[in-house]
Amino acid sequence: MRYETFFRDQLAALKAEGNYRTFAELERISGRFPRAFHHGIGREVTVWCSNDYLGMGQHPAVVAAMRDAVEKHGAGAGGTRNISGTSPQHVALERELAALHGKEAGLLFTSGYMSNWATIGTLAARMPGCIVLSDAANHASMIEGMRHSRAPKHVFRHNDAADLDRVLGELPADAPKIVAFESVYSMDGDIAPLSDLCDVAEKHDAMTYLDEVHGVGLYGPTGAGVSERDGVQHRLTVIEGTLAKGYGTVGGYIAGSAALCDYIRSFASGFIFSSALPPAVAAAALASVRHLRESQEERRLHQRQVATLRRRLDEEGLPHLRNPSHIVPVIVGDPIRCRGISERLLDRHGVYVQPINYPTVPRGTERLRFTATPLHSDEDIEHLVSALSETWSEFSLARAA
Amino acid sequence: MRYETFFRDQLAALKAEGNYRTFAELERISGRFPRAFHHGIGREVTVWCSNDYLGMGQHPAVVAAMRDAVEKHGAGAGGTRNISGTSPQHVALERELAALHGKEAGLLFTSGYMSNWATIGTLAARMPGCIVLSDAANHASMIEGMRHSRAPKHVFRHNDAADLDRVLGELPADAPKIVAFESVYSMDGDIAPLSDLCDVAEKHDAMTYLDEVHGVGLYGPTGAGVSERDGVQHRLTVIEGTLAKGYGTVGGYIAGSAALCDYIRSFASGFIFSSALPPAVAAAALASVRHLRESQEERRLHQRQVATLRRRLDEEGLPHLRNPSHIVPVIVGDPIRCRGISERLLDRHGVYVQPINYPTVPRGTERLRFTATPLHSDEDIEHLVSALSETWSEFSLARAA
Ligand SMILES: Cc1ncc(COP(=O)(O)O)c(C=O)c1O
Ligand SMILES: Cc1ncc(COP(=O)(O)O)c(C=O)c1O
Repeated sequence: MRYETFFRDQLAALKAEGNYRTFAELERISGRFPRAFHHGIGREVTVWCSNDYLGMGQHPAVVAAMRDAVEKHGAGAGGTRNISGTSPQHVALERELAALHGKEAGLLFTSGYMSNWATIGTLAARMPGCIVLSDAANHASMIEGMRHSRAPKHVFRHNDAADLDRVLGELPADAPKIVAFESVYSMDGDIAPLSDLCDVAEKHDAMTYLDEVHGVGLYGPTGAGVSERDGVQHRLTVIEGTLAKGYGTVGGYIAGSAALCDYIRSFASGFIFSSALPPAVAAAALASVRHLRESQEERRLHQRQVATLRRRLDEEGLPHLRNPSHIVPVIVGDPIRCRGISERLLDRHGVYVQPINYPTVPRGTERLRFTATPLHSDEDIEHLVSALSETWSEFSLARAA
Repeated sequence: MRYETFFRDQLAALKAEGNYRTFAELERISGRFPRAFHHGIGREVTVWCSNDYLGMGQHPAVVAAMRDAVEKHGAGAGGTRNISGTSPQHVALERELAALHGKEAGLLFTSGYMSNWATIGTLAARMPGCIVLSDAANHASMIEGMRHSRAPKHVFRHNDAADLDRVLGELPADAPKIVAFESVYSMDGDIAPLSDLCDVAEKHDAMTYLDEVHGVGLYGPTGAGVSERDGVQHRLTVIEGTLAKGYGTVGGYIAGSAALCDYIRSFASGFIFSSALPPAVAAAALASVRHLRESQEERRLHQRQVATLRRRLDEEGLPHLRNPSHIVPVIVGDPIRCRGISERLLDRHGVYVQPINYPTVPRGTERLRFTATPLHSDEDIEHLVSALSETWSEFSLARAA
């Protein structure tokens, strides 16, 4: 087989359909977010698609914690968690995350992807006869964990508790079951009916696994996510989150019972056989989680700027997906045009918003996905909306009624 | 099903067989490695099992690069690589890693585990009819990638090119094939016959995939690993490495042809759907790789201290596995006794060496695994050997002839 030819042909096909990705090379400048220096065009731009939703990546307490820990403890952990890689920072962060979610224990992973893949993969593979119930819109990391486990999987309709009830009703009552879903779905920005899903799962004696990746830091009185806001944290068997979005650093975790976390700690390949996060990253994440447990300011301002952005888009007749979250998707529905708009916004207006295409969203739903943060000023919003409005006309796109 | 009972029972079984793990809580103190403060016993210890093999985690250039980048660019990347998460630090590091291995391109992942799992998983799943050939001692991250791909897998005898030849000879000549192996096997410390394996793979037109995780930084004139030392880098289709061991930071990568790296970048779920490493981590890793491309001092001293440790163990009749690498395993062969020795070394002598047990090594081969670094002084070695010798007698273990 001619391997190189195979790779090149596949890439050519991706290019032909408009889904080939070029990464923007962005230099974040601490203290100037949402501004960043775009090396591709050689000038400063306003970032409108960051998942550093609250700008915590440049929060003085977070930066200081990371910088000080690097100075004091060095750059890396030096090993897997079992073999010399556990630091007081890891231990303190796991305790904090457990407390945040009202659980007995927490367990850190190198990423949210890994926490989902390893936890679901391990639970579903190792509990004899386990069956997985998966929301139709679940994230790749959960789906790959399910695939890895080889446990039988049933997909229920997106955010549909009645459909979950129907599917569960057809399964053997005594088989172990995991119902997996997210709180905020990051591409459409819709929010799951957590309480209804818990009702159904409890009725059928299934474990519940919640991905709060796009909720943590952002929702609930202490930033524990939508499950905190909705008062259902105690009803979820596992709450999974990331430290790379609302908390502005990197890493992933689960929170759950002491036995469950200890079980995953003891049996999950992706946890055991990988070097621990640097203590400095854990220290930064800890500072971020602690700050957002106390402070309401970031969440308040965040919601305010998201509402402002929506209102201004409406006023200009720029259509966007209605949803109850902080994510503002503008569907274009074609990868080439979506890229065209993104390029125009960048080149002419200094607005950086990455076109989102397959496989991140289904083909035909290509979109721009705007994330306003507490650090986007009213003027930033004004600038974005007028730039988008101008571009919208240039591309002859339809306005909302 | 009673989930909690299941978890508790499984943990109880692990405890009964002596394989339950307790993590040592170690506070690394930059500038004092291999010393660290052990919170469990409340005193400073000498770490003898770190995978920060060269002590680069506290190298002034590495620490400064990370600290400065945190100050300048903040704590996190702010997104996946495609959606606002690519920084000049990521781009520069990928270029450096490509150059290091004499390849056209490099691709970063959040961990070495992820780089193996995602790359092998993606190649083997997506190349129609692909067959995987796996060394019998391969690391979990590669094995899980193979499992995930669902491609047919054939295991060849550990480090046995003739057996690989035999297995390959039985397979259809035109099927795409990946032969996957490591350079330094981290638990026994043996080194693969890279050139022989390449000969066989080339004969059968198979791709070669080399995990250099325990070689990078440590071997070869510029630290590119055993494959550089042996002059076979150009014969390997993919060279995979970690930034968390010899380079002292965190993260993983592959290096290969431009088309191959672009293909993985474009299709690997574990790359696409996960937040990028912080620019500060990339900056630290870049400083480390650059330093070790130039400097021979760390490698020279490392080899010297490893040789000193081996010689002194021999003089005391303390049996250890003979191998051509930097890893010095002392087999105990029983999990409970292995833990006992480790505890005695810690409590009485301030020597921290984690007992290595199942599933990291096969049951019955439980061991202590000593890693001397350039920062372990002759006195440190003296202290370790006399402590181990005393403990050896207390446990009535046999001496070498
Ligand atoms: C819903 C969801 N879960 C998990 C992840 C993975 O988290 P991380 O970026 O920390 O790997 C992501 C995105 O990155 C996500 O959108
Ligand atoms: C051979 C081998 N490959 C890959 C890995 C994973 O690398 P990382 O620690 O960067 O996840 C390890 C150990 O951790 C390893 O020993």
